[in-house]
Amino acid sequence: MTASAELPPPDDWEPPTPNPSGWLTPEDLASVRAQLPLLYVDAIPVRVDDSGDVVAVGLLLRVGSRGLTRSLVSGRVLFHERVRDALLRHLEKDLGPVALPRVPASPQPFTVAEYFPTPGITAFHDPRQHAVSLAYVVPVSGDCRPQQDALDIAWLTPEEACADTVQAEFVGGQGALVRQAMAWVGRLT
Amino acid sequence: MTASAELPPPDDWEPPTPNPSGWLTPEDLASVRAQLPLLYVDAIPVRVDDSGDVVAVGLLLRVGSRGLTRSLVSGRVLFHERVRDALLRHLEKDLGPVALPRVPASPQPFTVAEYFPTPGITAFHDPRQHAVSLAYVVPVSGDCRPQQDALDIAWLTPEEACADTVQAEFVGGQGALVRQAMAWVGRLT
Amino acid sequence: MTASAELPPPDDWEPPTPNPSGWLTPEDLASVRAQLPLLYVDAIPVRVDDSGDVVAVGLLLRVGSRGLTRSLVSGRVLFHERVRDALLRHLEKDLGPVALPRVPASPQPFTVAEYFPTPGITAFHDPRQHAVSLAYVVPVSGDCRPQQDALDIAWLTPEEACADTVQAEFVGGQGALVRQAMAWVGRLT
Amino acid sequence: MTASAELPPPDDWEPPTPNPSGWLTPEDLASVRAQLPLLYVDAIPVRVDDSGDVVAVGLLLRVGSRGLTRSLVSGRVLFHERVRDALLRHLEKDLGPVALPRVPASPQPFTVAEYFPTPGITAFHDPRQHAVSLAYVVPVSGDCRPQQDALDIAWLTPEEACADTVQAEFVGGQGALVRQAMAWVGRLT
Repeated sequence: MTASAELPPPDDWEPPTPNPSGWLTPEDLASVRAQLPLLYVDAIPVRVDDSGDVVAVGLLLRVGSRGLTRSLVSGRVLFHERVRDALLRHLEKDLGPVALPRVPASPQPFTVAEYFPTPGITAFHDPRQHAVSLAYVVPVSGDCRPQQDALDIAWLTPEEACADTVQAEFVGGQGALVRQAMAWVGRLT
Repeated sequence: MTASAELPPPDDWEPPTPNPSGWLTPEDLASVRAQLPLLYVDAIPVRVDDSGDVVAVGLLLRVGSRGLTRSLVSGRVLFHERVRDALLRHLEKDLGPVALPRVPASPQPFTVAEYFPTPGITAFHDPRQHAVSLAYVVPVSGDCRPQQDALDIAWLTPEEACADTVQAEFVGGQGALVRQAMAWVGRLT
Repeated sequence: MTASAELPPPDDWEPPTPNPSGWLTPEDLASVRAQLPLLYVDAIPVRVDDSGDVVAVGLLLRVGSRGLTRSLVSGRVLFHERVRDALLRHLEKDLGPVALPRVPASPQPFTVAEYFPTPGITAFHDPRQHAVSLAYVVPVSGDCRPQQDALDIAWLTPEEACADTVQAEFVGGQGALVRQAMAWVGRLT
Repeated sequence: MTASAELPPPDDWEPPTPNPSGWLTPEDLASVRAQLPLLYVDAIPVRVDDSGDVVAVGLLLRVGSRGLTRSLVSGRVLFHERVRDALLRHLEKDLGPVALPRVPASPQPFTVAEYFPTPGITAFHDPRQHAVSLAYVVPVSGDCRPQQDALDIAWLTPEEACADTVQAEFVGGQGALVRQAMAWVGRLT
């Protein structure tokens, strides 16, 4: 089992964009990863009813050396990119172009997830790097289709998403982040 | 100038609903107002762009004994009513049935506005009562039409809504609440 | 089992204070409880280390007809009382005069707990009334001593406080509120 | 006027620590600054009264090529450093060893300030780099003494700190951050 199999692929695998200044060569990124915390965003995609209450949580299903794993929409913030634009870019990358995500109006995240290369410092762990992730709950109202390496997007009730069996299918502590999100929307029991 | 002219009409003027248990007679409500803090919600209706950034704030324009005044969507939470249902009810009452408000997924308000009958204790004042209001920023995507006693709904940029000239047109401190909302969405300069 | 045994005593059992205007007769309060949501505060007392990380949660132990139950610091906001003053008053009432609580600088609660007389509408239930409670995590640095009807104040680690066995000792959903608080401080796993 | 005179010195000027892995050579840091957003923390030091209400804001006074400027406690998060430890380190660096800061229990910041090298994208600007800063209000109860390059620490009331004359003495938009902080604690009028 390698580290890269445990977690979603680093987002430097994405195709180039019109603003290439935020892109690093694989060598540069590897070097930076050993020296600086990297800024990430985590989005928990949800379906809400008319009164805003969360009725379902969207989890990506991927296959790796550990077998099937679930994950959130997650990725790096690039140089000269606003946090809200990074959220939008990663949501589109993982859920497809017609997911119609509603990025929150406020930059205040519901929490900050600190992924350390050393396990046990926080609830979050990333063997590749020290990543600090601003976490947001993002209602989506359109069609979500798995992209790239994801096999499926499963919509679970808040209770299902927090259940121990589902929690065991996350890596790096992202299950705890789902529970924190459900606590914040008042759906953790 | 009377107190009732200074602020939007008390929401006990609303027509009855199918669940009348939350309604008090005018005499009972007057009595309760002198003895208990009343629970309110304040909604700041906003227009957002695709990345969730606030581009406009919707303010109600009313006419009273003080002349034209601006106000937010505001009202009481009824007995056995969820906060998110109270938000939805007041948004529909003030913005009309096709405003398509997106009530936030989390019950965490951006602030709690404490309106005291005595001025100067907080930034908020309501001569009629002690009201404690949970304040939310609510993006709306549909058509908003003034209802009942409102003359108009004006959409201002965040900068305009925070300008001193506009702030002078609020009563009871609701201008400060607009500024707090714009601070929370990162649009106060 | 009676309703009053299920939950901490209503805070109208408190001795009179210099400002009696916020006090209702038992008859009046009973009448209001059937007609209006009552405004409450819930405080989760915690011990923090030098870096602010939560190391323990303080839970009150009471005895009632259900046997031993755990509870948070909780109570009503009175007429003309600020939310932060209500927090301070209830913290002193339940933890004693030298607990040295640090009431948060911001009125933004980490959540709003809606206790309905009907079970199942939210995670929170109060057979006596519809109470809407602003919930805060409050670090305390002094000596905490059980007051009035509390037998003890037990300090548990966040993990212990969220464990199923401890959760089973709460009533009205306050266990869920502890989990939500631990999620918010990053200590729910 | 140079960029380095406009803003507090980069925190790579600090003396080495026992964990040197988070330190970059000046050349490496200059290179990284052109390619990645850097993670920062901003702390707004405040004095609070017994009920947690903010009574004063602590602002650092520095002298540079622009003359006297005010600033917040601000600095980079290092590799393998928790956000709360970075806050504590920078508070001690700028306010001295006996300031007794109370780092918040929750990692949820009141806002995220995005400093872009290009002015006008957000309210925040840093000509040296793209910095994304988690912003916290931090009550301090001890003695605060200016350290290093700061001439003084001035304690202003919330109203004074938000006044236009004081706001004009900040650079990079940190005045707007003070206003956002005061809005969040309910002290912006």
